[in-house]
Amino acid sequence: MNALHSDPSQTDALHTNVRQSDELRINASRLLQFISDMAQIGATVNGGCNRQALTDLDRQGRELFLNWCDAIGGKPRLDSMGNLFVRFAGANDTLEPILMGSHLDTQPTGGKYDGVYGVLAALEVMTTLADSNITLPRPVEIAVWCNEEGARFSPAMSGSGVFAGKLNQSEVYRSLDDDGVSYLDALTTSSQLGIEPCKAFPFKAALELHIEQGPILEAEQQTIGVVSGVQGMNWYQVTLYGESVHAGPTPMSMRKDPVQGMAKVLGKLFSKTAEYGEAARLTVGKISTHPSSPNTVPQRVTFTLDVRHPSQAKLDQLSQEILALCQSHAEPLSTDIEVLWQSPAVEFDATCVGAIARAAQALELSSMPIVSGAGHDSVYLSSVGPTAMIFVPCKDGISHNEKEHTEPEQLVAGANVLLHSLIQLSE
Amino acid sequence: MNALHSDPSQTDALHTNVRQSDELRINASRLLQFISDMAQIGATVNGGCNRQALTDLDRQGRELFLNWCDAIGGKPRLDSMGNLFVRFAGANDTLEPILMGSHLDTQPTGGKYDGVYGVLAALEVMTTLADSNITLPRPVEIAVWCNEEGARFSPAMSGSGVFAGKLNQSEVYRSLDDDGVSYLDALTTSSQLGIEPCKAFPFKAALELHIEQGPILEAEQQTIGVVSGVQGMNWYQVTLYGESVHAGPTPMSMRKDPVQGMAKVLGKLFSKTAEYGEAARLTVGKISTHPSSPNTVPQRVTFTLDVRHPSQAKLDQLSQEILALCQSHAEPLSTDIEVLWQSPAVEFDATCVGAIARAAQALELSSMPIVSGAGHDSVYLSSVGPTAMIFVPCKDGISHNEKEHTEPEQLVAGANVLLHSLIQLSE
Repeated sequence: MNALHSDPSQTDALHTNVRQSDELRINASRLLQFISDMAQIGATVNGGCNRQALTDLDRQGRELFLNWCDAIGGKPRLDSMGNLFVRFAGANDTLEPILMGSHLDTQPTGGKYDGVYGVLAALEVMTTLADSNITLPRPVEIAVWCNEEGARFSPAMSGSGVFAGKLNQSEVYRSLDDDGVSYLDALTTSSQLGIEPCKAFPFKAALELHIEQGPILEAEQQTIGVVSGVQGMNWYQVTLYGESVHAGPTPMSMRKDPVQGMAKVLGKLFSKTAEYGEAARLTVGKISTHPSSPNTVPQRVTFTLDVRHPSQAKLDQLSQEILALCQSHAEPLSTDIEVLWQSPAVEFDATCVGAIARAAQALELSSMPIVSGAGHDSVYLSSVGPTAMIFVPCKDGISHNEKEHTEPEQLVAGANVLLHSLIQLSE
Repeated sequence: MNALHSDPSQTDALHTNVRQSDELRINASRLLQFISDMAQIGATVNGGCNRQALTDLDRQGRELFLNWCDAIGGKPRLDSMGNLFVRFAGANDTLEPILMGSHLDTQPTGGKYDGVYGVLAALEVMTTLADSNITLPRPVEIAVWCNEEGARFSPAMSGSGVFAGKLNQSEVYRSLDDDGVSYLDALTTSSQLGIEPCKAFPFKAALELHIEQGPILEAEQQTIGVVSGVQGMNWYQVTLYGESVHAGPTPMSMRKDPVQGMAKVLGKLFSKTAEYGEAARLTVGKISTHPSSPNTVPQRVTFTLDVRHPSQAKLDQLSQEILALCQSHAEPLSTDIEVLWQSPAVEFDATCVGAIARAAQALELSSMPIVSGAGHDSVYLSSVGPTAMIFVPCKDGISHNEKEHTEPEQLVAGANVLLHSLIQLSE
């Protein structure tokens, strides 16, 4: 085993630390208390959380988090996108840091865990190390990415997106919430506009611990998901144009009814997706007709397609087939397809993924490789440095929902995997 | 041929009138001028009309109409629902009147003909008779039904509905427009609240001339539609309940996706409707998902069904089959069905229909029997007295639209059929 840092004069003491660290465990009740305290800020009557990005509640949540960090010597700084970094010095503080974190903002009727858990588990990991007077060989930064959810400002993951150079800061600044407040104004009024330019800096590794937001770990009765990558996803908006006529007089055979077209097309799309097997996903989340009147055949119907696959090649192929079906099976309607969003399939860093797998094994936790179906800040981070994610189960796969729930022992297990992955990667 | 009225002392003179009346034709340019002048009130930039019920523009339109009526001796009266009747005395003024008319209110982006044509053609018919000094054997009343469109106040056809005892006046009075103005307040501020109670009175016949609002006459190249009745219609709102999950993680096989359920169900419903042949109609005008987010499998999807058939028995049977399919084919989703509205199939009065058919034949106009797919004031009227309708083609079947158009010669033809149907029925 290597020394925890590279200063030879301290090697013996550090070896002791390392041996101790094999036995090191996070403080379960403190982690749960962190989560419970944070959930008070923006708590909803149904037991969830509404703490949207760059609101006053978001600011309050960050201040609470910063108080906890301050108690263990964390040094905060904000960047120009409202990303918050809290730095803990390493034995050699000139080495590239390891990033741990996620986000503290929530959906409007969100849960207590999505994102928040990743930040507070990182805090608990650093608090555990501080308790044991362990200084890691290199610095650690807890990253709190801004506006991950995209619930208030579109697009989602805007903080990490600008950080990775994948989104344009000026454009995100102009993004408006439903009340017409811009991202930039919200940064200012919530005191989250930092002086440091938002720009990727070198890091040794980035680790994000997150609830799965899906049912697989629960179904497979596994505690830890070793996330090998993230599904690629393509979002489209499809509009089928027909002819608006009165519901009564026009015989069915003389109609150009976009709803009939949509029913036919959707059936084909779901069948096609099934041909791509277990890993493929198709979601039609939004549908609207225009005009929207019970006794009028709509002139047009618009629906979204969210297509996902862990293999970029398969995703491309499935998407092409789906779009072709939209065109061919909608006839005689005319079809308009808009690309709303594309996020390529991501394969996480093998070293980071390996460290997580070994940590779970050493902790004797059941684990399995898994592909993330949801987007995360780690998708952007992985384009600028070695990145990986750890998943824990969430009940019934339910997320973005006030009912979001993960068992305490699973929360604790995930945080211990984070701790030991960090220790490994810091060496 | 009978005398035009029953006073034997005038029989010879009236026989002369009747012989003359076979040759009688309405004044085409005056009819078109009436329509053109009325269309100025509430004219839209795209060539349509926005003259919604009980607005100041509606009042202006009625005043213009009343000036024209006044010039030929029409005596107006308003009832408590804002229905306007203009009476023209008959040779025997104690006989039951014949009603002719339709409505002057329009959709927000409506056309120049829907309803308006029926009122102004009736005016032209009475003006033509006045020009020729013809007094019919019995009185005639031009009826302008209030709030036929239902665009401002729900439900539609409220004036004729209360008249026929099918709607409750107090309930309609409480109906609010989008600005929170009640029907009763609008009646008062537009000076359309009459002292006569809104209540059916005996009439010999009621004739409504209207544009078809469908494509059949145009497709069949017929000038006159002899309307035998109105399709029965049932409106339902169907909600399919599934389980809302994130679009990424949950495998397709583990989803309870209401959109997949809807696509399957809609296909079955349209196929079932096709089995009922040419006369059956199914329209799905409104569709919404909840939550409505591209990356969330909706928890529920809601859509409307508008089912129509001219035979009440067939309508009942088709509706039952459709609702059963919604239940059985949506499994494992749960289904909720709400009845929004039911309007039974109507068969118009054989004597009135016969008079229209004979008038079209005598005028050597091409004609065909047709069933109305749209609702009209005549549906309610037919429940309290002998009623029928005359249709003329409308371009591309387009109505409730600023592009609504009927050729001048078709407008003139329809008014001549109205004239000669009236003369026949008045005898």
